[in-house]
Amino acid sequence: MGNDATAQANIGVVGLAVMGANLARNLAGREGNTVAVFNRSPERTRRLVDEHPEAGFVASEDLDAFVASLTVPRTAIIMVQAGAGTDAVIDQLADRFEAGDIIVDGGNANFQDTIRREHALRERGLNFVGAGISGGEEGALNGPSIMPGGSAEAYATLGPILESIAAVAEGEPCVTHVGTDGAGHFVKMIHNGIEYADMQLIGESYDLLRRVGGHDTDAIADVFAAWNDGDLESYLIEITAEVLRHRDAETGTPLVDLIVDEAGSKGTGVWTVQNAVGLGIPVGGIAEAVFARAVSSKPEQRAAVRGVVGARPELPEVGEDFEDDVRAALYASKVVAYAQGFDAIIAGAREYDWDIHLGDIAKIWRGGCIIRARFLNRIVEAYDRDTTPATLLEDPYFADVVARGDAAWRRIVAIAAQAGVPAPGFSSALAYYDALASERLPASLIQAQRDFFGAHTYRRVDRPGTFHTLWSADRSEVQED
Amino acid sequence: MGNDATAQANIGVVGLAVMGANLARNLAGREGNTVAVFNRSPERTRRLVDEHPEAGFVASEDLDAFVASLTVPRTAIIMVQAGAGTDAVIDQLADRFEAGDIIVDGGNANFQDTIRREHALRERGLNFVGAGISGGEEGALNGPSIMPGGSAEAYATLGPILESIAAVAEGEPCVTHVGTDGAGHFVKMIHNGIEYADMQLIGESYDLLRRVGGHDTDAIADVFAAWNDGDLESYLIEITAEVLRHRDAETGTPLVDLIVDEAGSKGTGVWTVQNAVGLGIPVGGIAEAVFARAVSSKPEQRAAVRGVVGARPELPEVGEDFEDDVRAALYASKVVAYAQGFDAIIAGAREYDWDIHLGDIAKIWRGGCIIRARFLNRIVEAYDRDTTPATLLEDPYFADVVARGDAAWRRIVAIAAQAGVPAPGFSSALAYYDALASERLPASLIQAQRDFFGAHTYRRVDRPGTFHTLWSADRSEVQED
Repeated sequence: MGNDATAQANIGVVGLAVMGANLARNLAGREGNTVAVFNRSPERTRRLVDEHPEAGFVASEDLDAFVASLTVPRTAIIMVQAGAGTDAVIDQLADRFEAGDIIVDGGNANFQDTIRREHALRERGLNFVGAGISGGEEGALNGPSIMPGGSAEAYATLGPILESIAAVAEGEPCVTHVGTDGAGHFVKMIHNGIEYADMQLIGESYDLLRRVGGHDTDAIADVFAAWNDGDLESYLIEITAEVLRHRDAETGTPLVDLIVDEAGSKGTGVWTVQNAVGLGIPVGGIAEAVFARAVSSKPEQRAAVRGVVGARPELPEVGEDFEDDVRAALYASKVVAYAQGFDAIIAGAREYDWDIHLGDIAKIWRGGCIIRARFLNRIVEAYDRDTTPATLLEDPYFADVVARGDAAWRRIVAIAAQAGVPAPGFSSALAYYDALASERLPASLIQAQRDFFGAHTYRRVDRPGTFHTLWSADRSEVQED
Repeated sequence: MGNDATAQANIGVVGLAVMGANLARNLAGREGNTVAVFNRSPERTRRLVDEHPEAGFVASEDLDAFVASLTVPRTAIIMVQAGAGTDAVIDQLADRFEAGDIIVDGGNANFQDTIRREHALRERGLNFVGAGISGGEEGALNGPSIMPGGSAEAYATLGPILESIAAVAEGEPCVTHVGTDGAGHFVKMIHNGIEYADMQLIGESYDLLRRVGGHDTDAIADVFAAWNDGDLESYLIEITAEVLRHRDAETGTPLVDLIVDEAGSKGTGVWTVQNAVGLGIPVGGIAEAVFARAVSSKPEQRAAVRGVVGARPELPEVGEDFEDDVRAALYASKVVAYAQGFDAIIAGAREYDWDIHLGDIAKIWRGGCIIRARFLNRIVEAYDRDTTPATLLEDPYFADVVARGDAAWRRIVAIAAQAGVPAPGFSSALAYYDALASERLPASLIQAQRDFFGAHTYRRVDRPGTFHTLWSADRSEVQED
């Protein structure tokens, strides 16, 4: 193992589409980095180098030369479309890398793939790091939030490089060693799931302000802009105001009214729901957001139902508190969605044996990423007060947010139901909170039903043991253990 | 290939725990069947044979003898715990069976395992049938609903045997050849998912009648018994009344009040959500039911939240229409849950290339299984009127159910929110319906946000093409294709 005479770059980037190119430029712009670049089609490499002479890229047109241009331990970030292509690039690099070298997958890989790849490369003495990167094209260029997994050994080399390019929030770089093998991509998946929930809650707020509040898009933009000066301050609230203000150049119509109302998705929301439900974690806030996008994208079903519905409900009169009520419902529902998301991280860490520090996750989400928000400081503080609360909802700050918003939240869910405006995110979050807050739940009835038809047994509140009632015989009770 | 001289049984059962033993007895009691039985521990086989001499079982104490006791084509139903044990038993049978013989897995296998097993055995010339069997122990004995997959060739032999033991509804046996390979276990999975939704909606109804309506368990039992004389007539409504009437022998307390209110689950609800969301099908009714059970089973979180909540909302006054309103909300929400479940079957059939007749699925669920209900006749009729509606909700009967219940449904969701009684099933179903019924959804805003931060592009309502706004530049719009 040793350096080729030409080795000079401390970091390389493979895959120079817009995300990769921007990340390479970001790396090159930071003190101490010399960046090697490679792309399968060399035109793209040449264009990047030509357009950015200031970056001092070390460009290679074949992979052997790229590898030779890296100093030891060789460290390369792969920025290609997640999927089968990733395996091919990893294999090509692995065949050329030596023990101790580091391959980073910066794409949106499924964390299960990342675990598999990490274990396979570790067998060969190589370090593999699955790193979630959030912030879109602009974040890649100016400072993303980065969620790397992999070994501590790899992080010793990689960490300072990532810290040099990450966003900075409250003076700290938005990157931390999340945990081993797939921990980084798992946490990135949950980040994206929470992003679905955030966007859905904003969408419901907009829809209620529009349809029930009777506001036009400019007025609603003002509402969101005002909210962005308070506890709700966040990137998504900010861009919502921007979007709502934007008008079609040709017609002057608000652009949002010209966009087909069928929401797409890329899969990480689906993965979040699949994994959380498999881990036994209720994530209604995220699931309802994924479902709402799915419903919107079924134009045939929508047309069929619109064709048969009778009179739609009359819109209720609302007073001047309506906007504040919507804000309170949004904030309380957001607290629930985040509490559920962090519960999924806790469950994932337990299942896959990761040592994840929840406060550190909240910290690195404060800047660079799509869900960046003032609110995340409150989560950092909550985990400072208590590193292992039973739920974020018991933290004094969040308990207070919910208590203060309680009546408004209920009014909004009730109004949405009465008005026929779908608010699955608000109502699922409220039902979750009410389930946690209830002294008794009808789960006792469900246990009795399960015992009736399937002899699934039940426990009693008044004594230990497992019991079964002989429902189809004399209905006496037998103790099973 | 040929019969051993001792071959005499047209059907065999492997695994004689209570489900297997009951199924074997059911088979033996029907004209034309001679039933071979085998269990790994021979004591169980001996006990079954001793206790049921009337069955005329052909018992074997080793697998070779069991196989030799079967006439050709040999047909054996495996009734063992789903999982790794199933593979072992399949392998042992497959090593002894000959081309054209039939191995049936009657357990609750994951349909993906069934697909894998069917393909592997088909390579060896053997027939493998994954058959979902619903109805619990009593159904197995007296007539279950059976959902077999596998080849048409296998069904030619197996069908008449299964028809002989299935429940009968409206004069028809509750069994049909669902589709190839894993189709049967897929449909059984959806059946169980719907069962979760049904039980959750009943639980919410009970909770509202109890907490908001102020009824005691006997009064609520009367309500459910009355509902069981109408459109809601079903096994689950019937046993709910039975359960609520049942009192602890010792204390005289309603049993439901002595049962720990933490609901368990066995995995098929989770599988339904994971698969449906992966197929792009919103199944909020099922997901909220799975989540509600999960929340109930987190005593630490429940205690933590109960410890910090302030004053709980005051219970609203309700009038004498309240019970009828709850009934209407339950029925409308049930329609939604079934519409979603059938959508998941349609999507599964498309994904896995199964020719599934939806009306036949509704037919075989009318008897024997846990979700059997008068209501399923309405679904049969709907698919008679139109075999491929865009959604069950456009069928005239169901559209009418929802239209007539519309105002009550909204009142109940609003009351639940105001009262702090969790009704995630009711509210998720209503939001789903309102999303389908809305002229415009805030999905347009979500598309704009996605275009803003991720350049995901959008379509326009006024012209074809895919567009992107240059949000971080001059905000002009470019056409992408």
